[in-house]
Amino acid sequence: MKSWRDNVRRVVPYVPGEQPNDPDMIKLNTNENPYPPSPKVEEAIRNLDCDAFRLYPDPTAHKLVSAIADYHDLKESQVFVGVGSDDVLAMAFMTFFNGDRPILFPDITYSFYDVWADLLRIPYVKVPLNQELEISCADYKQENGGVIFPNPNAPTGTALTLEEIRFILEHNRETTVIVDEAYVDFGADTALPLLKEYDNLLVVRTFSKSRSMAGMRIGYACGSEEMIRCLNDVKYSFNSYTMDMTVLEAGAASIADEDYFQETICKVQETRQWTQEQLRRLGFTLKDSSANFVFASHGECPARELFEALRQNHIYVRYFDKPRIDNYLRITIGTQKEMEKLVDFLETYLKKRKER
Amino acid sequence: MKSWRDNVRRVVPYVPGEQPNDPDMIKLNTNENPYPPSPKVEEAIRNLDCDAFRLYPDPTAHKLVSAIADYHDLKESQVFVGVGSDDVLAMAFMTFFNGDRPILFPDITYSFYDVWADLLRIPYVKVPLNQELEISCADYKQENGGVIFPNPNAPTGTALTLEEIRFILEHNRETTVIVDEAYVDFGADTALPLLKEYDNLLVVRTFSKSRSMAGMRIGYACGSEEMIRCLNDVKYSFNSYTMDMTVLEAGAASIADEDYFQETICKVQETRQWTQEQLRRLGFTLKDSSANFVFASHGECPARELFEALRQNHIYVRYFDKPRIDNYLRITIGTQKEMEKLVDFLETYLKKRKER
Repeated sequence: MKSWRDNVRRVVPYVPGEQPNDPDMIKLNTNENPYPPSPKVEEAIRNLDCDAFRLYPDPTAHKLVSAIADYHDLKESQVFVGVGSDDVLAMAFMTFFNGDRPILFPDITYSFYDVWADLLRIPYVKVPLNQELEISCADYKQENGGVIFPNPNAPTGTALTLEEIRFILEHNRETTVIVDEAYVDFGADTALPLLKEYDNLLVVRTFSKSRSMAGMRIGYACGSEEMIRCLNDVKYSFNSYTMDMTVLEAGAASIADEDYFQETICKVQETRQWTQEQLRRLGFTLKDSSANFVFASHGECPARELFEALRQNHIYVRYFDKPRIDNYLRITIGTQKEMEKLVDFLETYLKKRKER
Repeated sequence: MKSWRDNVRRVVPYVPGEQPNDPDMIKLNTNENPYPPSPKVEEAIRNLDCDAFRLYPDPTAHKLVSAIADYHDLKESQVFVGVGSDDVLAMAFMTFFNGDRPILFPDITYSFYDVWADLLRIPYVKVPLNQELEISCADYKQENGGVIFPNPNAPTGTALTLEEIRFILEHNRETTVIVDEAYVDFGADTALPLLKEYDNLLVVRTFSKSRSMAGMRIGYACGSEEMIRCLNDVKYSFNSYTMDMTVLEAGAASIADEDYFQETICKVQETRQWTQEQLRRLGFTLKDSSANFVFASHGECPARELFEALRQNHIYVRYFDKPRIDNYLRITIGTQKEMEKLVDFLETYLKKRKER
């Protein structure tokens, strides 16, 4: 018998990462920034004209787009904004990965790339990271319908150099190359300077990490004017008014406070440096991270055991039960105090474990 | 030569309706509510904990979903929320209109249905409104891959009765039927009571019109638990975190202020009644509207001429240069004072025109 169910797009439901609701917790599991957004963001929210909510917001999001364009010294027509970088990436997959050949992305990477590809019926090939769990540029020289990778990569935290990114672009002139720079502000080279040379490069960014605004859902893409026009054509055919009035003001206010932004980044970087040293002291193996998290494996104690032990002590980190990375923990860089508590706990736990 | 352009999804760019930026204007062109949102919305915004913006918002949007579910006496698992009803409808098209047979919607209706269908490569048939420019239920008895219509319809403003909607559902048990109730609060029967009988019915609503919150981008859908699960599966595969923290609070605050909501609706209805009478007095033909706009045609003066004359006098209404409706104006119901200015202008203009 026929049913409305026959016409439903079936997907393997994506399960968002755990968002524990534990008042005493130390939350180091979703790469949120431990510091609040700029005080200018609060000021913008307090000054909102709430009566104006009765009107539609500016569909071009001009206030936010122009702030971002100025900040990166680009034209406004080179900037696209969306509801978090997930919205921007979903639109980019829909717009640019519309061919028959498979798109390429790393096997160990942001867990949403294959979800979008499955949802939108885009063929794809997962390109294995090398032995060091790093992206090997030469592997992206194969025929494809598009390329996407994060820089720095997640959950590994290591970054490609600008020259390595250029290498990938140089060998992929005929398809769209997306560099997902969600974590770039914490210490990797941005691909933005390459926009002048490659009209098929899209650089995607977010306010969720370095700007401490995950709760406000702001992402953006920078690219050639032609690419941004293509993106906007699809976006205006999907949802013309995505950015609400609060977000337009709050986002622009964040961009306006460069000093605060740099200060916050520095604090995270200093704590990251300290955390890396301490973890190594405790017997962890980890690469220097270019992001606001570290990806660490312990020589003696399995990651899953540590994950559970931390969790029982209200310290939430991320564990991936996946091939190649099932002995690693991804630990977000919190405040210095939070990381001291983490290190103290691990030190005590590992010591007791040895004595057993 | 191959190019990244070969893989781009080509769409006919949708052009959002005019958003004039004229300080002295009377804006009656995009069906915005002339009254501000509930004062409780402002209160919620002023009380926001902006430091919490550093964290991800609740992906389940529980605060908003539960407020809506309570309001309509539904289960939380029967409510889906999105970034305006456009986001909800885009997700619904993607989720439920995934078959090979054409979906059906009126030829004169919300201008986005064919845009989504084109974008998502969904086949469709436009079912002509009858001579009276009304939906004729019997026309929806043909084979299809889904049905969608607004109630009241836009831009015509007339509504189907609950029994007529039941008729359409009764003859479409095998495909998804979406009733787009963007304007229903202004005086049409809601299809919500039919949810108990039809598990293939989706009712879509917005905060943009009756709740005076177009600037905040909140829409929702009510349906069977199974339908809402299907919608969420697709949504979580597209963008898990769509509703920002300000929207969750502001939306719930609006729902909490039922008195203000009813008061605002009443004011719009009273002004609509007065406007309809005045327009008829001036020689316009129009049906009683169930929405916050009227759709009117003048016996002697072409709509396009009136549109231009109004525009030159800073009064913006909507004119559609489309077959069958190119002699109509869609006029949003503003404040009583705004409508008096509109009527005064029209009276003077039509009188002078007659004397020429």
